[in-house]
Amino acid sequence: MPGADQVTQVVASLEAELNRLKHELTTMGVADSVPAASETCTVADYLLERLNQLGVTTMFGLPGDFNLGFLDYVEAHPKIQWAGNCNELNASYAADGYARVKEGSIGVLLTTFGVGELSAVNGIAGAYSEHVPVLHIVGVPRTDQQKTKPILHHTLGDGRFDAYYKAFQNFVCSHANLTDKATIAAEIDRVITETVLFAKPSYLMLPTDLVHVHIPKKRLLTPLNLAPPRNNPEVETFVLDEIMKLIEAADRDVVLLVDACAIRHGVRKEVKELVEKSKFPVYAAPMGKTAVSEAYERYGGIYVGTISRPEVKEKVENAKLILSLGGLKSDFNTGNFTYQIPATRSIELHSDHTIVQHATYPGIGMKWLLPKLTERLAGLAEGAQLIEVPRFTTPVPQEANETISQSWLWPRMGKFFRSGDVIVAETGTSSFGVLDVPFPEGSVFVSQILWGSIGWTVGSTLGAALAAQDIGMSRTILFVGDGSLQLTVQELSVMHKLGVKPIIFVLNNSGYTIERYLHGEKAKYNDITNWEWTSLLSTMGGAEGRSCQSYTVRTKTELSRLLEDEKFARADKIQLVEMIMPMHDAPRALKVQAELSGLTNKYTA
Amino acid sequence: MPGADQVTQVVASLEAELNRLKHELTTMGVADSVPAASETCTVADYLLERLNQLGVTTMFGLPGDFNLGFLDYVEAHPKIQWAGNCNELNASYAADGYARVKEGSIGVLLTTFGVGELSAVNGIAGAYSEHVPVLHIVGVPRTDQQKTKPILHHTLGDGRFDAYYKAFQNFVCSHANLTDKATIAAEIDRVITETVLFAKPSYLMLPTDLVHVHIPKKRLLTPLNLAPPRNNPEVETFVLDEIMKLIEAADRDVVLLVDACAIRHGVRKEVKELVEKSKFPVYAAPMGKTAVSEAYERYGGIYVGTISRPEVKEKVENAKLILSLGGLKSDFNTGNFTYQIPATRSIELHSDHTIVQHATYPGIGMKWLLPKLTERLAGLAEGAQLIEVPRFTTPVPQEANETISQSWLWPRMGKFFRSGDVIVAETGTSSFGVLDVPFPEGSVFVSQILWGSIGWTVGSTLGAALAAQDIGMSRTILFVGDGSLQLTVQELSVMHKLGVKPIIFVLNNSGYTIERYLHGEKAKYNDITNWEWTSLLSTMGGAEGRSCQSYTVRTKTELSRLLEDEKFARADKIQLVEMIMPMHDAPRALKVQAELSGLTNKYTA
Repeated sequence: MPGADQVTQVVASLEAELNRLKHELTTMGVADSVPAASETCTVADYLLERLNQLGVTTMFGLPGDFNLGFLDYVEAHPKIQWAGNCNELNASYAADGYARVKEGSIGVLLTTFGVGELSAVNGIAGAYSEHVPVLHIVGVPRTDQQKTKPILHHTLGDGRFDAYYKAFQNFVCSHANLTDKATIAAEIDRVITETVLFAKPSYLMLPTDLVHVHIPKKRLLTPLNLAPPRNNPEVETFVLDEIMKLIEAADRDVVLLVDACAIRHGVRKEVKELVEKSKFPVYAAPMGKTAVSEAYERYGGIYVGTISRPEVKEKVENAKLILSLGGLKSDFNTGNFTYQIPATRSIELHSDHTIVQHATYPGIGMKWLLPKLTERLAGLAEGAQLIEVPRFTTPVPQEANETISQSWLWPRMGKFFRSGDVIVAETGTSSFGVLDVPFPEGSVFVSQILWGSIGWTVGSTLGAALAAQDIGMSRTILFVGDGSLQLTVQELSVMHKLGVKPIIFVLNNSGYTIERYLHGEKAKYNDITNWEWTSLLSTMGGAEGRSCQSYTVRTKTELSRLLEDEKFARADKIQLVEMIMPMHDAPRALKVQAELSGLTNKYTA
Repeated sequence: MPGADQVTQVVASLEAELNRLKHELTTMGVADSVPAASETCTVADYLLERLNQLGVTTMFGLPGDFNLGFLDYVEAHPKIQWAGNCNELNASYAADGYARVKEGSIGVLLTTFGVGELSAVNGIAGAYSEHVPVLHIVGVPRTDQQKTKPILHHTLGDGRFDAYYKAFQNFVCSHANLTDKATIAAEIDRVITETVLFAKPSYLMLPTDLVHVHIPKKRLLTPLNLAPPRNNPEVETFVLDEIMKLIEAADRDVVLLVDACAIRHGVRKEVKELVEKSKFPVYAAPMGKTAVSEAYERYGGIYVGTISRPEVKEKVENAKLILSLGGLKSDFNTGNFTYQIPATRSIELHSDHTIVQHATYPGIGMKWLLPKLTERLAGLAEGAQLIEVPRFTTPVPQEANETISQSWLWPRMGKFFRSGDVIVAETGTSSFGVLDVPFPEGSVFVSQILWGSIGWTVGSTLGAALAAQDIGMSRTILFVGDGSLQLTVQELSVMHKLGVKPIIFVLNNSGYTIERYLHGEKAKYNDITNWEWTSLLSTMGGAEGRSCQSYTVRTKTELSRLLEDEKFARADKIQLVEMIMPMHDAPRALKVQAELSGLTNKYTA
């Protein structure tokens, strides 16, 4: 029997032989994918590889001295490109738009300590509010300086190096300061996992001296576990039973209502199965627009409380049972909280809880519940007489003038949209106007109806267009008001630089129209300066007529002619269309919502 | 003796007569300034009157539905104009620039709940860092909604209505949520007072339903007490004795070093007295440039540790005693912490404490200490042989080429500056380059050397130019790099709209030059898109040749010709000058500082 010493010697010589052979393999270019337990990589490469595994192809942000070391790795990465945005708020908007369109992936923002990160707070808070997974990486000073706290540039001058971190903790679901080499990989994995699981932003501090530190790379072989935890089987079964009781009692008079979280929490497939197998009529809240195809024959359009079309309101509110999928009942998403759906006729499925009438079941999430529910419903639809669904169409009205009115514009655009379009609508007349227009099969609606930060769409269009390229979508189309565009205009430059080709429709109606309808209809504070909108692209790097194209349209005829022009429609270069529109005009839905919000805000004594 | 009843009757009839007379006076337009104890005004008017008393003439910000009610009052105010900025970060920068130039007043920013306020965090944090008094007013939802917490637009969706307030508490010296009618006036007064006393930003939440509520206006008759508390007399005398001991032991070999807080804390007059009465040589840290006149015969230039001119370094570091006024020893302000001034030869006066060698005296502030010190020094200078001061001049170098080099540009600009100029320099080659150039008497230097947020100067130039108009300064001149300008470009539109006429010199050297010198000299991430800089003003509302003028200069000759053109120099319209400069060129000071910071950041393994 060999003694311990001999065994040790054998092990040592075998290990030496193994390493020699591995080295030969590496030299032959073979073994890169077969890391030994002793192989390491830098923290930067580890983080980038995790992002790569998640399908991230663009990182957004700006350079700043505390992140330049990490940026070297980003610039060198073969699969991830550096966006190089114009400012950090726009970059955070872009990361948000990217994540919304590239479902299953995440948006990634890189900023620098203090001045960079704090410029992006609004973008991160908006992503938190609307359930969008954005990872915010911040380059920060060396670990020892975080202890000694010298008065570096970008600091508050009083030694509080953790002030920005504390501020951000209000707006992220997960965060870490990567200071300890021993736990960096685990922390990176944890934070990224939680970003995806909760579909909310997160925050990682990356000190300059840890960027190059070597850590074991073995963990990278194990993909992150991004599936939500399974539901407790006993409770899940109980809940399914309760739901089925109500469905059976409703005698097939059940309506489905899809909302924001049906998109955000990776359940599109499960929702589609439920919708198609159950054949229940399905409607969408504004934030759920395109959660299911608007061309689907059992889809009846947008439900938004009292602001809904009468036939939709009637069908939804009179159903015996309303099954809501991923509800997010904010004011603009519900006609200012005017749902007439008593709890006794309501079931709500969410990512992490279920509500059946008045009972809440924490921890019962729809990812696992939906397929089981679909299965239980199998057969229910056969031979059943299906409840009628109003046809969701919006004909182009005949108007006896050439004015580009709100009432004409949106239905006319509806005819312009195509399958595969990503359609981005800014908070204001655009987001309200476009709701009532059916989108084609395979198109995606992007808007920020809950958070509502004007100017957001310019940054998010950049990200959405990049993601659209990745997933084989077709065109990206943006509708933005003149007022909103001024907040974030410089990102047009980055769109052009990165070669995305959105069609940007600018509603030139002389000011902040949504504000006018809320209050101050003729107030000077709702006016803006009229810019030369059609010079923006060429001023910011484009070559008009070659790499970009701009137009002004003043009449229905001019706009229609443009929309019918195939060269324009195929969007082979970035294009901006200035549409001259009346100052005091808005979609019906906006007028009603603004009036309701205005009353809420009690603007006058 | 009249009884109580009779007295009461007499009082009542006198009061009635008094009110009648007052009404007459009011009708005659006289008595507005003599309110009766029973008179009230709205919360909005109260707040605006306090701002008016502080000499605020412009309020910065953007409309949003939660602040429109208050905005009505702002728009109607006869003395305070509404800036109507393009975005909130730029607006916060403008409020900062305004406050810096209009010493004794404050900057005021108005934003809306969530989306507006959070866009401005970086601007407020920068003001905190650099001791600038900016009041941030946020229009927020009604008081009852703050309790019931519905999912309004601009909220996080989880009921946390106080999340933004909590985030801001990291970056302000004072804050209040104005929810209680009984304490609103006192809270407004407290917060504004603390803004001025600490010279730091503050935060006020103004619910929509409290804007119009009436509160007593009597407090307005009492001006706010904005003077810092007196020093404890016993301690103050002790400290003065200690200081005088050291000064006497130094046998007049004492050097004064003025820094940021000599400007920020309302002690210019006191500092000037000390400087002129003591006749000690005086130098300035970068952040103290123009705290004293750079034309003063006993002024020797900029002291910045090892980066100083050799003769300045020698004079300061070899003095027997260095008396620092308002020191703020950040990295870029001290040549990366390279002061060679041992504590035993150092005295530091601050706004709220004094340091004598190794002893700290909390609560002994320079506002009250300085005049007493000056008095004690009276007579010391008489007949004394004054220590020589190096002449602070920067001759224009003779260079044998036409390149607009960094080494030539700044001295050449030194000849262009005039008394009364406000000179704003962006973080980068501008802020480093302009340090070494003597500014004329009565000019003001504006830069963000500690916080260093690039793009800041575009917003702050707007505010600085408005303040300059108010206080009778002459021109506002901005030096900004091409990279920095892209972050905040849209505020050029607001400059033009409000009729300020800065001269904007754009250093077109193809990228983020300060970053190149820190790291990534040739990295793509330090490149930017080249814009048509000279089209910016006309694209954003200007009429080229009429209300604005743009130029491109490529050579020394072209630039000199322009600077010598009186029409250009008198700045009677907004002007932008694009200067074509080499990519890899920077002022000496920047090169040295960037190398030091780069080593600090350990960019490579």
